[in-house]
Amino acid sequence: MAEEKVNLQTEDFSKWYLQSIQQADLFAYGPVRGTMVFKPNGFALWKKVQDYFEAKITEEGVKGVYFPMLIPKHFFEKEADHVEGFAPELPWVTQAGDEELEEPLALRPTSETLFGNAMSDWINSYRDLPMELNQWANVFRWEKRTLPFLRTTEFLWQEGHCAYATAEEGRERTLTFLEIYREMVENLLAIPVYVGQKTESEKFAGAEATYSLEAMVKDTKSVQAATSHFLGTNFAEAFDIKYLNTENEHVHVHTSSWGISTRILGTMIMTHGDEKGCVFPPKMAPIQIALIPAGNIKKNPQVLEKLREIEAELKAAGYTTELDDSNNSAGYKFNEAEVKGIPLRVEFGPRDMENNQCMIKMRDLDDKESVALDDLLDVVADRMDKMQTRLFEKADQFRKENEHYDIDTMAELEAHLAKCEESGQRPGWILAGWDGTEASEEAIKEATGFTTRNMPFEPAVKKETCIYSGKPAKYTVWLARAY
Amino acid sequence: MAEEKVNLQTEDFSKWYLQSIQQADLFAYGPVRGTMVFKPNGFALWKKVQDYFEAKITEEGVKGVYFPMLIPKHFFEKEADHVEGFAPELPWVTQAGDEELEEPLALRPTSETLFGNAMSDWINSYRDLPMELNQWANVFRWEKRTLPFLRTTEFLWQEGHCAYATAEEGRERTLTFLEIYREMVENLLAIPVYVGQKTESEKFAGAEATYSLEAMVKDTKSVQAATSHFLGTNFAEAFDIKYLNTENEHVHVHTSSWGISTRILGTMIMTHGDEKGCVFPPKMAPIQIALIPAGNIKKNPQVLEKLREIEAELKAAGYTTELDDSNNSAGYKFNEAEVKGIPLRVEFGPRDMENNQCMIKMRDLDDKESVALDDLLDVVADRMDKMQTRLFEKADQFRKENEHYDIDTMAELEAHLAKCEESGQRPGWILAGWDGTEASEEAIKEATGFTTRNMPFEPAVKKETCIYSGKPAKYTVWLARAY
Repeated sequence: MAEEKVNLQTEDFSKWYLQSIQQADLFAYGPVRGTMVFKPNGFALWKKVQDYFEAKITEEGVKGVYFPMLIPKHFFEKEADHVEGFAPELPWVTQAGDEELEEPLALRPTSETLFGNAMSDWINSYRDLPMELNQWANVFRWEKRTLPFLRTTEFLWQEGHCAYATAEEGRERTLTFLEIYREMVENLLAIPVYVGQKTESEKFAGAEATYSLEAMVKDTKSVQAATSHFLGTNFAEAFDIKYLNTENEHVHVHTSSWGISTRILGTMIMTHGDEKGCVFPPKMAPIQIALIPAGNIKKNPQVLEKLREIEAELKAAGYTTELDDSNNSAGYKFNEAEVKGIPLRVEFGPRDMENNQCMIKMRDLDDKESVALDDLLDVVADRMDKMQTRLFEKADQFRKENEHYDIDTMAELEAHLAKCEESGQRPGWILAGWDGTEASEEAIKEATGFTTRNMPFEPAVKKETCIYSGKPAKYTVWLARAY
Repeated sequence: MAEEKVNLQTEDFSKWYLQSIQQADLFAYGPVRGTMVFKPNGFALWKKVQDYFEAKITEEGVKGVYFPMLIPKHFFEKEADHVEGFAPELPWVTQAGDEELEEPLALRPTSETLFGNAMSDWINSYRDLPMELNQWANVFRWEKRTLPFLRTTEFLWQEGHCAYATAEEGRERTLTFLEIYREMVENLLAIPVYVGQKTESEKFAGAEATYSLEAMVKDTKSVQAATSHFLGTNFAEAFDIKYLNTENEHVHVHTSSWGISTRILGTMIMTHGDEKGCVFPPKMAPIQIALIPAGNIKKNPQVLEKLREIEAELKAAGYTTELDDSNNSAGYKFNEAEVKGIPLRVEFGPRDMENNQCMIKMRDLDDKESVALDDLLDVVADRMDKMQTRLFEKADQFRKENEHYDIDTMAELEAHLAKCEESGQRPGWILAGWDGTEASEEAIKEATGFTTRNMPFEPAVKKETCIYSGKPAKYTVWLARAY
């Protein structure tokens, strides 16, 4: 029966990824290069992130706002690093109707300049601080290499923009929002993350310090899952944001910004998917339960009827469900439910009806389980909880197996990569010492394609020498290939 | 005491409007002409519309999606009326980074073309129908005359796009969504509306029929508050959207679209505001209850403490509150709460503390009321309910007073307008007979500035002759000046 099949996930990860998100009906390509349509299943994923995060930041007292999308060219020029970082990726509106615009307008790649400009009006005294604002918006970065969810020329995100009286408060809140991301990414999306600080060369254009969550996906590449930036007084100086302090002096505020985007959804799929395709954590799944009748429905219409009752009960308990009453075979339907990544499948046939039971199968486990219908709600709740935890633990196990702590020289790194190349093993991540120079970072990247991901706040091992220069290490840093 | 004041609302309505929305801290001007920033209080209004409407359409089975914003130029050219209608207002992206684009890309003014293009891929058989999709998005129309909320070059809206097997189903659902808008606009925003069909010349570019809600605001101008379009097979033909019907024929689907935008917020403010400024319906108010300590707070710190307890209780009951503990006078604070449009104000001083009571005042009533603290929650709930209803009824009363049923010729209309001009009375709306020709519509507009708003499904009076031509009336239509 069983056919020898190539494991697409290990053999050709990008092909596996594209096939998986297509089978789960998450997206379509947009008509403009590098854009995508979020189809209902794909948008449902983003909605869950929105609802969860919105509730968390509302609790923190953050206020929702919306800023216009177009940014006058001269705004970018006010913060030198910022314009340099974003200029190559900016799409420009130059015309409206038949009219040539006097000044080109950029589609926002991020909104520090707009918030900075507004805050200089809105903030007058220490009484106006802290000011913590957030918007949900579409943003644009005209990148050459694109991949649905992971990197698209237009994407959706939230961007928080805050102003504080002191650097201390600014730094502390920058880390508070990083922690809120971590909690959400780990508990809602079941993705274990590496929390740390980006290096100088990898930080946000205009930031004093950038903190990030990094995730290791199944090809052991890294995806930057969320960032929180402490901007110091860089934007306050560029946009003249000052407040009157309690000593009656006009001084600059300290600002921060933080964002998470739709790329987190691609990260999740690359973290939990298996060779069959998507596997959604129960809390995130667009459809949580598939209901599939077994046996001949036409001969046993009462089976379908009873299954609809079961569905109604599960819906009433708050689950999203899909009952497949098409004429396809049960085997075909099982496969459909699997490639859609639906966490739990209920099978129900004439014999089950007699015995007042059903079969359930979890997407990430091989075995089926028979459940008395009277217990179904409790069992489903329990199995969903367990699956949510299990996916996190599996991903955590996977990343630990692919962390390398004992590679301390370029020779060792190159030997490791050669061995991986030969065996088909994934290269994983390297915890390395780094002398803190951009030259070493650049040389490591040149030689291996590995870049610095972030510097853990408290590394499990503190490295003494730089993996590249052999000089004393200033930092301990995660090295990995990255999306 | 009382100073003789100009009633700004009746004397200079636009000035009144701008002052009102500024005092309520709803918006700021954006850096690009015709754009606005939704400040926290302004965005909170939109969030309430979003949450309410999202719940209603989710119940209807509509699925959320997100389409990319940029539209290739050749898409517009597929539907002739559509391109003609929107071309003068389209901003164009012509450049990205240093690169000239091969084809200019429009910032979406609406997304029929994008949905049409996608649906032609997504729809194959009758099993795929109906398809009912919705997105929340920013859209762009480069208009010359702009006004915050009412008409901005970028605005926020939702756009529903649907496809159906038959024209009958399409028309019926077009009206279903119109009815969902009506229910929301009347019950949530407390704005009574005129429901009807737009004339040929006022319908959406590319529609077969456009239905609208029109609101009469306090200067008796009309604002189009929401629209629902039946598009027939116009877009299905332009984008080749076909399905295999049960007779195994490939036939065109029938499509519809419907939208409500942030202009509904300006409509609400212009409907309920009074000479002091904004008056928010309790269900919409960004801040529902203002709490203001009376007497000397420094001398009686326990008053402030007790007031904070009252605030906590109201918050726990789900109200948004603002306690003003600044050093300003109570009179100043009262005024602040009024110009912010806060529906209910709680005043609490040392004497109230002794008597275990407080004073409450509704924004739209003159008298204060003393309430025992033990009854406060019940009384607040009751007064809020009553205010919500009262605002609707007042607005309904206002519009009825400004409806004119007895103006049947241009001479009568011109006499009416001359009388209004002289007396300072608002011109109101005219229910008129219309011969159905664009020539008559154009001539009425030319002579009086009145345009056809919509044709009521069941007019209270059926007019027999055209107000302009004197010929037999084909339709009975509302005429008014409009935003």
